[in-house]
Amino acid sequence: MHAYRTHTCAALRASDAGKTVRLSGWVHRKRDHGGLLFIDLRDRFGLTQCVFPSGSIVFDQAEAVRPESVITVTGEVVLREAGTINDKLPTGEIEIRVHEIAVQSQAEVLPIQVAGEQEFPEDLRLRYRFLDLRREKQKNNILLRAGVIASIRRRMIDQGFTEFQTPILTASSPEGARDFLVPARNHPGKFYALPQAPQQFKQLAMVAGFDRYFQIAPCFRDEASRADRSPGEFYQLDFEMSFVTQEDVFTAIEPVISGVFEEFAGSRKVYGAPFPRIAYDTAMLEYGSDKPDLRNPIKITDVTEHFANSGFGLFAKIAAAGGIVRAVPAPGAADKPRGFFDKLNEWARAEGAGGLGYIQFAVDGPKGPIAKNLEADRVEAIRVACRLNPGDAVFFAAGKKDEAPKFSGKVRTRLGEELGLIAKDEFRFCWIVDFPMYELNEDTKQIDFSHNPFSMPQGGLEALNTMDPLEIKAFQYDIVCNGVELSSGAIRNHRPDIMIRAFEIAGYTAQDVEDRFGGMLNAFRYGAPPHGGSAPGIDRIVMLLADEPNIREVILFPLNQQGEDLMMQAPAPVPAARLKELHIKLDLPPAKTAGAKPA
Amino acid sequence: MHAYRTHTCAALRASDAGKTVRLSGWVHRKRDHGGLLFIDLRDRFGLTQCVFPSGSIVFDQAEAVRPESVITVTGEVVLREAGTINDKLPTGEIEIRVHEIAVQSQAEVLPIQVAGEQEFPEDLRLRYRFLDLRREKQKNNILLRAGVIASIRRRMIDQGFTEFQTPILTASSPEGARDFLVPARNHPGKFYALPQAPQQFKQLAMVAGFDRYFQIAPCFRDEASRADRSPGEFYQLDFEMSFVTQEDVFTAIEPVISGVFEEFAGSRKVYGAPFPRIAYDTAMLEYGSDKPDLRNPIKITDVTEHFANSGFGLFAKIAAAGGIVRAVPAPGAADKPRGFFDKLNEWARAEGAGGLGYIQFAVDGPKGPIAKNLEADRVEAIRVACRLNPGDAVFFAAGKKDEAPKFSGKVRTRLGEELGLIAKDEFRFCWIVDFPMYELNEDTKQIDFSHNPFSMPQGGLEALNTMDPLEIKAFQYDIVCNGVELSSGAIRNHRPDIMIRAFEIAGYTAQDVEDRFGGMLNAFRYGAPPHGGSAPGIDRIVMLLADEPNIREVILFPLNQQGEDLMMQAPAPVPAARLKELHIKLDLPPAKTAGAKPA
Repeated sequence: MHAYRTHTCAALRASDAGKTVRLSGWVHRKRDHGGLLFIDLRDRFGLTQCVFPSGSIVFDQAEAVRPESVITVTGEVVLREAGTINDKLPTGEIEIRVHEIAVQSQAEVLPIQVAGEQEFPEDLRLRYRFLDLRREKQKNNILLRAGVIASIRRRMIDQGFTEFQTPILTASSPEGARDFLVPARNHPGKFYALPQAPQQFKQLAMVAGFDRYFQIAPCFRDEASRADRSPGEFYQLDFEMSFVTQEDVFTAIEPVISGVFEEFAGSRKVYGAPFPRIAYDTAMLEYGSDKPDLRNPIKITDVTEHFANSGFGLFAKIAAAGGIVRAVPAPGAADKPRGFFDKLNEWARAEGAGGLGYIQFAVDGPKGPIAKNLEADRVEAIRVACRLNPGDAVFFAAGKKDEAPKFSGKVRTRLGEELGLIAKDEFRFCWIVDFPMYELNEDTKQIDFSHNPFSMPQGGLEALNTMDPLEIKAFQYDIVCNGVELSSGAIRNHRPDIMIRAFEIAGYTAQDVEDRFGGMLNAFRYGAPPHGGSAPGIDRIVMLLADEPNIREVILFPLNQQGEDLMMQAPAPVPAARLKELHIKLDLPPAKTAGAKPA
Repeated sequence: MHAYRTHTCAALRASDAGKTVRLSGWVHRKRDHGGLLFIDLRDRFGLTQCVFPSGSIVFDQAEAVRPESVITVTGEVVLREAGTINDKLPTGEIEIRVHEIAVQSQAEVLPIQVAGEQEFPEDLRLRYRFLDLRREKQKNNILLRAGVIASIRRRMIDQGFTEFQTPILTASSPEGARDFLVPARNHPGKFYALPQAPQQFKQLAMVAGFDRYFQIAPCFRDEASRADRSPGEFYQLDFEMSFVTQEDVFTAIEPVISGVFEEFAGSRKVYGAPFPRIAYDTAMLEYGSDKPDLRNPIKITDVTEHFANSGFGLFAKIAAAGGIVRAVPAPGAADKPRGFFDKLNEWARAEGAGGLGYIQFAVDGPKGPIAKNLEADRVEAIRVACRLNPGDAVFFAAGKKDEAPKFSGKVRTRLGEELGLIAKDEFRFCWIVDFPMYELNEDTKQIDFSHNPFSMPQGGLEALNTMDPLEIKAFQYDIVCNGVELSSGAIRNHRPDIMIRAFEIAGYTAQDVEDRFGGMLNAFRYGAPPHGGSAPGIDRIVMLLADEPNIREVILFPLNQQGEDLMMQAPAPVPAARLKELHIKLDLPPAKTAGAKPA
């Protein structure tokens, strides 16, 4: 018989009755039922009930072990009596009558409980993460993550991608966030940087001719922690393809993303490939966001024309000043009580808006303050434009051109939630495409890149040379799921001449570009294929599937919000000799001392 | 028609003749054959011959592109004339008659050639790695690596392992090599360390109950570069299992390793699972090494007894002083010319040995200086002990107990090479088991751990309390392939009491252990399963399969031997403001300046 187990704790069934078996696992729960001691023995796979008859030597031994101790039991599989069968457990028809027990590891009194649903402070959980991870939900989150990543890998390989490992000790990247730095012992005064993303390396892999690259890539940004971003490292499905159009990228990655979601969505509905393609301008108009949640059926309409020179003076004035008015339908809300409309107005003011005008299209006609002042034919025109039916209402977000659309998007989300219109058990994806290449910096009145300076402008060099820069679109695209941006991607600018011209428009000289991005530019001078890709965030995909708003819940051993590993005690002071060897010394802020900070 | 390609450069066959196709790729070779211009167009998948008829506009355009430019050609697939069919190319029956060409990226004059077999200095190759990787051998090495890793992943998952990502920004590890350090911006004076291996995390994953873990894990050691070790990062197949004996670990991993080798060995022979298990003591005796190359059929025999008090004074003296004599057979070498023996003696002296005694068992009887002095019955006893036949020779490595075995191993390897006995087209694995737990430090006369202090001693606490420490074996094991150590592994010591006692024998107090390894020890106090694992080196596996002695040849973008990324210019100086933010300043050696070092 095996030293530790003949079966896992999820394996035994009624048909095994009579067998002598050996199981190992953790003492999940102990129950003393007058004369019999029960232990639910737990391993990764499940639970099995073990019985220790009173008066036996194993009874005394079992009584002495604390919860979460690791034991090995040997005994006979017996059928449970009819009344004690547990339908919820796959092993619920049997129990083990134990005749031998070996304590592999005696547990001390636990700082956090494993059995049960009790909540514990996050820092305590992270300090004892090895206990926290034994809990069902935590364990399942991490297994989900592992399953998602394995599934992505399988699907990417099926799509003809090859996984490569790019360097982790490398040079500062031009992504713009803050790098983590690593002193180079053999190069006094010099530092490696950890990659913010393997962006340059994957493009170099294309220049090297590898055609289709992917990597479940660790990325590092020394940035403040957020609910959806770890303070140190995160993972992305980094991929890149050669000789492709934007549509080829979509076609390659859509089945991977929708396949993974379908695999792990359980009973939730996945709107699979192809994902709708929505132009950035359309998204900002109809959803008031470049990250639209398509589970929300509300679509926004521009109704500026209907208010221009109208009897509703406030909006007429806004329209006259070059502002805009956006209408956000509220299906079925016409009969909502006054309090509903008041509450939304309060919320709007808290969001910094002047208020939130509305029209109620009641069965007996339009109502509300705006309907009283606006000409009846204009009210009707708005109803038609917004496709409203009797019983619906509509809210208006009015203001400056660069503020009203975003606010209308907030109103849309808020109404979707208030009216219960957002289907919580669905995954709906879209591509946002045709992002503007440039935008006007309102402070400097200069033209800036609006997103990624390394994207190929639509129309190429000719567009750069002939069009109004603010009209130029880029071959750049985001994948959005349920209002969450999974990734940003682009067809890259692989032509040094087009890149230098693109930067020139944004105020950089050719020398600036050479100085800052010379490595890439140089590579593009030796035969670069047209290429493009993207990098969906792994942590975000798992968060969506696990329905977890906190990124730390989907990471095996996460840093806490302060960037500390409470279990391993990192970061930590380092002996002076080590620093000497690295040719650095501390340069501490005078006011604080390391000792004054909480560990 | 697709903007870039309807087919890859490896796709077209005779049956495609007549089709209009579009291909994209790199200009591999250009040949002007009086009136016709030929371009071999290359992509990752293969080569296709493209023909540009003279006098056409595409002829002039094609003539203007330099090698390694990226072009897209559109044209008709035509059958080659019988005499010009190229049997070596899958596309060798056809060519493309081009009627349209688009230059996607014009290449400048190349610093290193892609076509052809020319050698270039490594630093030049690494500076232009994106060109270097277009070469057939370099490309194939990297694709082999990708294939090996994907295969390992698939096989590990099939064996019930789950892949988890462990932290990269973490605490200093007790592995003993030098860590890379990362200043923590939000924790003045504190540092993260990059993991030398995820050893502690994988053990904590076992304590958390995950049962079977693996990871293609990036590991970081700030150590000098060697041919088989990168100066910065390397990858290992890190794995760990719960509730297992040593034999369970072997059974789980053997099919993975031998499966991968069988998949990629090509025509080479793989001696698959189960791998021979060789006790450390046996390995040191019979192979003179704990990394025996089993492709070498020579086995060593201890012949000290035959020289003790014998007529061969030199060895008799060594034996009398407690030294040993090992016999290394040289099959079929009896008739080798005098020069063969002299050359080996010279080599032995260069290795620091006094010389290399030998006996030739010629057909007409034993010969050589030793045979002259040693009693005939002893000569015969040696012949029998070493299983030698007429025509064989035997060499002797004599010396101190801790020196002679290793030297005999060198002699064995040297003889195997000299006599052409090593089967170069085979992969032979073995497990080395039963390593000693402790060894005597000859300098301090103290007892030290001989390998891994965290391994479980065979016999557990009782062995530690009752046995001579130098007699205690550990549950520790190496996988060796063709004389290369692929990994070191162990059944871990998961019991705080046994660990503290084990360290006590090596001179550490319980407090020392708590101070240095408190994190792990603490985790083991809350229910730790018996567990064990190993971590075969990925780079080494790929090096063996690629038959590459230089690790940089199997890494996509390696650092050079000085730890520099010549392509991305890392490591690099950092602006003072960045250092200030990290609460460090430079502490440069006075004699050197950064500028005086080569870039």
